Amino acid sequence: MTDMTYRRLGRSGLKVSVLSFGSWVSFGPQLDVAKAADCLEEAYAHGVNFFDNAEIYSDGKSETIMGEAIKKLGWERHSYVISSKFFWGIKDGVNSKNTLNRKYLMEAIDPSLERMGLEHLDLIYCHRPDPETPIEETVWAMSDIVSSGRALYWGTSEWSADEIRAAWHIAETHHLHKPVMEQPQYNLVWRDKVEEEYARLYDDIGLGLTTWSPLASGLLTGKYLDGVPEGSRATLPGYEWLQKMLTNEKTNAKVRELKTVADDLGCTLAQLSIAWCAKNPNVSTVITGASRPEQVTENMKALDVLADLDDEVMTRIDEIFG
Amino acid sequence: MTDMTYRRLGRSGLKVSVLSFGSWVSFGPQLDVAKAADCLEEAYAHGVNFFDNAEIYSDGKSETIMGEAIKKLGWERHSYVISSKFFWGIKDGVNSKNTLNRKYLMEAIDPSLERMGLEHLDLIYCHRPDPETPIEETVWAMSDIVSSGRALYWGTSEWSADEIRAAWHIAETHHLHKPVMEQPQYNLVWRDKVEEEYARLYDDIGLGLTTWSPLASGLLTGKYLDGVPEGSRATLPGYEWLQKMLTNEKTNAKVRELKTVADDLGCTLAQLSIAWCAKNPNVSTVITGASRPEQVTENMKALDVLADLDDEVMTRIDEIFG
Amino acid sequence: MTDMTYRRLGRSGLKVSVLSFGSWVSFGPQLDVAKAADCLEEAYAHGVNFFDNAEIYSDGKSETIMGEAIKKLGWERHSYVISSKFFWGIKDGVNSKNTLNRKYLMEAIDPSLERMGLEHLDLIYCHRPDPETPIEETVWAMSDIVSSGRALYWGTSEWSADEIRAAWHIAETHHLHKPVMEQPQYNLVWRDKVEEEYARLYDDIGLGLTTWSPLASGLLTGKYLDGVPEGSRATLPGYEWLQKMLTNEKTNAKVRELKTVADDLGCTLAQLSIAWCAKNPNVSTVITGASRPEQVTENMKALDVLADLDDEVMTRIDEIFG
Amino acid sequence: MTDMTYRRLGRSGLKVSVLSFGSWVSFGPQLDVAKAADCLEEAYAHGVNFFDNAEIYSDGKSETIMGEAIKKLGWERHSYVISSKFFWGIKDGVNSKNTLNRKYLMEAIDPSLERMGLEHLDLIYCHRPDPETPIEETVWAMSDIVSSGRALYWGTSEWSADEIRAAWHIAETHHLHKPVMEQPQYNLVWRDKVEEEYARLYDDIGLGLTTWSPLASGLLTGKYLDGVPEGSRATLPGYEWLQKMLTNEKTNAKVRELKTVADDLGCTLAQLSIAWCAKNPNVSTVITGASRPEQVTENMKALDVLADLDDEVMTRIDEIFG
Repeated sequence: MTDMTYRRLGRSGLKVSVLSFGSWVSFGPQLDVAKAADCLEEAYAHGVNFFDNAEIYSDGKSETIMGEAIKKLGWERHSYVISSKFFWGIKDGVNSKNTLNRKYLMEAIDPSLERMGLEHLDLIYCHRPDPETPIEETVWAMSDIVSSGRALYWGTSEWSADEIRAAWHIAETHHLHKPVMEQPQYNLVWRDKVEEEYARLYDDIGLGLTTWSPLASGLLTGKYLDGVPEGSRATLPGYEWLQKMLTNEKTNAKVRELKTVADDLGCTLAQLSIAWCAKNPNVSTVITGASRPEQVTENMKALDVLADLDDEVMTRIDEIFG
Repeated sequence: MTDMTYRRLGRSGLKVSVLSFGSWVSFGPQLDVAKAADCLEEAYAHGVNFFDNAEIYSDGKSETIMGEAIKKLGWERHSYVISSKFFWGIKDGVNSKNTLNRKYLMEAIDPSLERMGLEHLDLIYCHRPDPETPIEETVWAMSDIVSSGRALYWGTSEWSADEIRAAWHIAETHHLHKPVMEQPQYNLVWRDKVEEEYARLYDDIGLGLTTWSPLASGLLTGKYLDGVPEGSRATLPGYEWLQKMLTNEKTNAKVRELKTVADDLGCTLAQLSIAWCAKNPNVSTVITGASRPEQVTENMKALDVLADLDDEVMTRIDEIFG
Repeated sequence: MTDMTYRRLGRSGLKVSVLSFGSWVSFGPQLDVAKAADCLEEAYAHGVNFFDNAEIYSDGKSETIMGEAIKKLGWERHSYVISSKFFWGIKDGVNSKNTLNRKYLMEAIDPSLERMGLEHLDLIYCHRPDPETPIEETVWAMSDIVSSGRALYWGTSEWSADEIRAAWHIAETHHLHKPVMEQPQYNLVWRDKVEEEYARLYDDIGLGLTTWSPLASGLLTGKYLDGVPEGSRATLPGYEWLQKMLTNEKTNAKVRELKTVADDLGCTLAQLSIAWCAKNPNVSTVITGASRPEQVTENMKALDVLADLDDEVMTRIDEIFG
Repeated sequence: MTDMTYRRLGRSGLKVSVLSFGSWVSFGPQLDVAKAADCLEEAYAHGVNFFDNAEIYSDGKSETIMGEAIKKLGWERHSYVISSKFFWGIKDGVNSKNTLNRKYLMEAIDPSLERMGLEHLDLIYCHRPDPETPIEETVWAMSDIVSSGRALYWGTSEWSADEIRAAWHIAETHHLHKPVMEQPQYNLVWRDKVEEEYARLYDDIGLGLTTWSPLASGLLTGKYLDGVPEGSRATLPGYEWLQKMLTNEKTNAKVRELKTVADDLGCTLAQLSIAWCAKNPNVSTVITGASRPEQVTENMKALDVLADLDDEVMTRIDEIFG
């Protein structure tokens, strides 16, 4: 299998594996510590060094599970990059949910570190923009957390280009730690933000990307081409939006065409879709998910596919999803 | 009863209940921890999330009582916003009374936190301006306290517009934490500062207001319309100014007129007066006081009145107090 | 006796008694803790709130003695302002003597606090200028000490006006804590620095002065008018410069004239000389010394004299020393 | 023997002995703590006050040995200047080797201090430039380490003039701690960087130099004039570059000519070569190495030679190596 490659997180000096592992969805509801450790171990063995997490994932349990699993695995601190994200909050209250105000952020970081069992996180994100907190207040709080040593780099997730640039300029003006990365959704059916909206930010401020949902919530695995099976995540309450997306006829037609490309490359749709994300040089790392070690192994084969994505293949894919 | 509403503290991302609870006057001389807890519990049950305090209130006892009451009530830290204010000092000496110099502020914050039993305050105020300390010295000290994590936001109380703007600009220039809020007296008979003097600050620097004395020390409750009864606060030594104010004929005539408005709305004078303060969109929160839970309940009914304050009612009130 | 008056330390908000007490010369070689405590207690009883010290005084012993004496007296921290000064160093070595480099200052502050038994000093001084360290390096180190909370204000001693202004501007430019005060020698026979060289600094940067040697090492007490008695400090080895100064004929002639002014005012030469220093509005405090409580009491009577220094008396003095 | 002289580290106020002692090569593979202590003791006795080290030297063992030796010798902290350098890393991983990113630097400093048994280092260096980390990220991390008190000054090693100037300007712009010194190789056969490339930096930013390899890895001792003996360092695996350099005919011809100068001065080639480095006024200190105390003594005699390097001798040397 192709060796892992590492990319700089945007213009920063931090290097992340081009494929990384995120605990969203899987840790907590589906996985206990032992099974989580199995997945992490498999990813680590393939050279994955970035492990993505968030306060909101399973209401803090995902952080606890990842922390305990890493402790169990005995990894040395320097060998992995770990994140958390803050915005939704896991406690009720006007200053603890859906906010990026100073009170929330300052009161959220220590419990997160405690759940993780760590002295510092590598990356912390503003999980969403908060239109009701001035960006300046958020920039100060994130920068103050970095200054205190409790995190090394900070960034955003699903912010607009304008918001990211505003944050960067406020930090530059006030001599604070600047945002380094953004975590947007990015996949074959969700391209605009990364390819158009953020286009100027890569050069202008050296923005790095840690992208999520390379498989568009499973759509790009092809396993929903014949409908959504009972009991799958898309049928759970609260995931109606997902079911709708997964069963979109027009999109599924494109997925069927993409299947022929995957077949020609001798890989799965999932591997091709992941590799396609990684092909974008502005993407620092593609966050993948799994609830079994075997899935991790399968995902990692996207590294082989990435090597095969020449101009011809890329043109075929562009013609399908263009 | 109408649900509590929450407003941003000026342009900051912190949200405070439009009605809040202050311990001034009541905690200490009149209330022990158990009775204070009853009042706090009642306010909290109505959605109040901001609890105002100051070092000087009962010479530190108010902080101790509130701290112990909150501990007893077992509130989670994220669920309330708590303040203290500094200026008068509770120890004798040229650097401990009536000053905002660095020595006083730096030596005052830790004892306040200790009395409160907290690791950080949410809001700290300069309780009055100090003409004998440069604003720059005070801004540095307040900002340094915020940087140290012992408070989250800082502001002023009863400063002039010019002083507030000066503080804001010094902080902006030196990249320090800026003042976020001001705590002025504001009520139907004391309107100029909030409505005229500060007029430009709301837009220019995003100033938030936590207003005190919505009942003008009881004047607007109407209970002094027939004179000040023996034994009430206004007859205590040191409160002669209050007795004079409460018995002003011209003002009491207006209060009598306001009573007809309250009657028409089916509410008390106090509820109408509190609601009127909250009607001002530049007011983030109206600090109310009480020494019995029943009083808290009564005050909270101002939320219902607030919903009734349409243009017609506001015009009637303006014609009385204009 | 006239009550103590307090002045702002330059434009800062810190207030110091116009007469203060310094431990130079007396603490250590002449005084043990018990006797030092007697002097401090007497000064404190007269309203003195500033107690001056330095690392070099008796090689650290002066700090230890003052610390122990204050502990013994049980003074509350807010009630006094205490200083130390750094430059000469009390350990041998190119980076520990006669320097204001970062290494020396950073390694000197904690031992000083330990000797004093304090968590923070109020005032720290650069005891002399160091031509071999860039002012910028010294400003950063002093400011970093203030930022760390180990001191509240910093200043200089016997720096040139140009050096003080340079330090102030570097701090202003880099948003650091600015120097607040200077400690120059100032008395009737040593006036140029305070009255001419620093003239612009009082307005321009709000410089405060804590002046030393109001009696010109005893010259202005008149007790050397008939020569230096055997056994007095001026006859000790290393104090030859002092003996020369004390026996200068021309100056002693002026002192004799001044004696008539003192006689007319019904005070001692020492009291008149101390009061004269305090008369200068740019002087925040005049540091006096004593090795017996009775001497402290005598010095404090200068407060009465200060009240008598009207234009006529000042003109007489100017004509003598002009 | 000539007394040690001390020079300012560039324009900083820190003073270093013109001859200093580095542990590179010798500590670890060749020396245990006892023998290391003998060398350090001898150097210290000659007035050496700067002791150079790096994380990479013997993979951390050099720091451990030096720390234990200094503890054994009981030196007072103020009496020596100690360094470490960071870049290569001693743990595997993309963020722990050959990097100056924030993660590596922040995770490297505490283990280094622990190995040394110290609370702060005096000097920390970026051991090489890292083209894959923005200089701004490195400047922030180094400055943050200085701000935290874990180091007093920071600098670079083998950076280009352009990189050093860029770092200085970023620090100046963002009001951070600026780089103070550079550690380049400098000797008779390796002069360009110090004499030409850095030429403007001495005045422009006050750069100090702590130079290494004064003997060009032994070439300038003359002991390889007749070839490299078996068992010497140059014959070890990984040192092939060294053997090639040591046996360069053209250079050895110059060394033979230099021998006549040394003979005329009555000193060894090594002493002359070390003295020649120290003659350059932009060199703050010449780092020498030794594995036996006798070697230290021999090196220190370069101080005598330095006094003899008049214009005539310098011209002779220049003609040989010009």
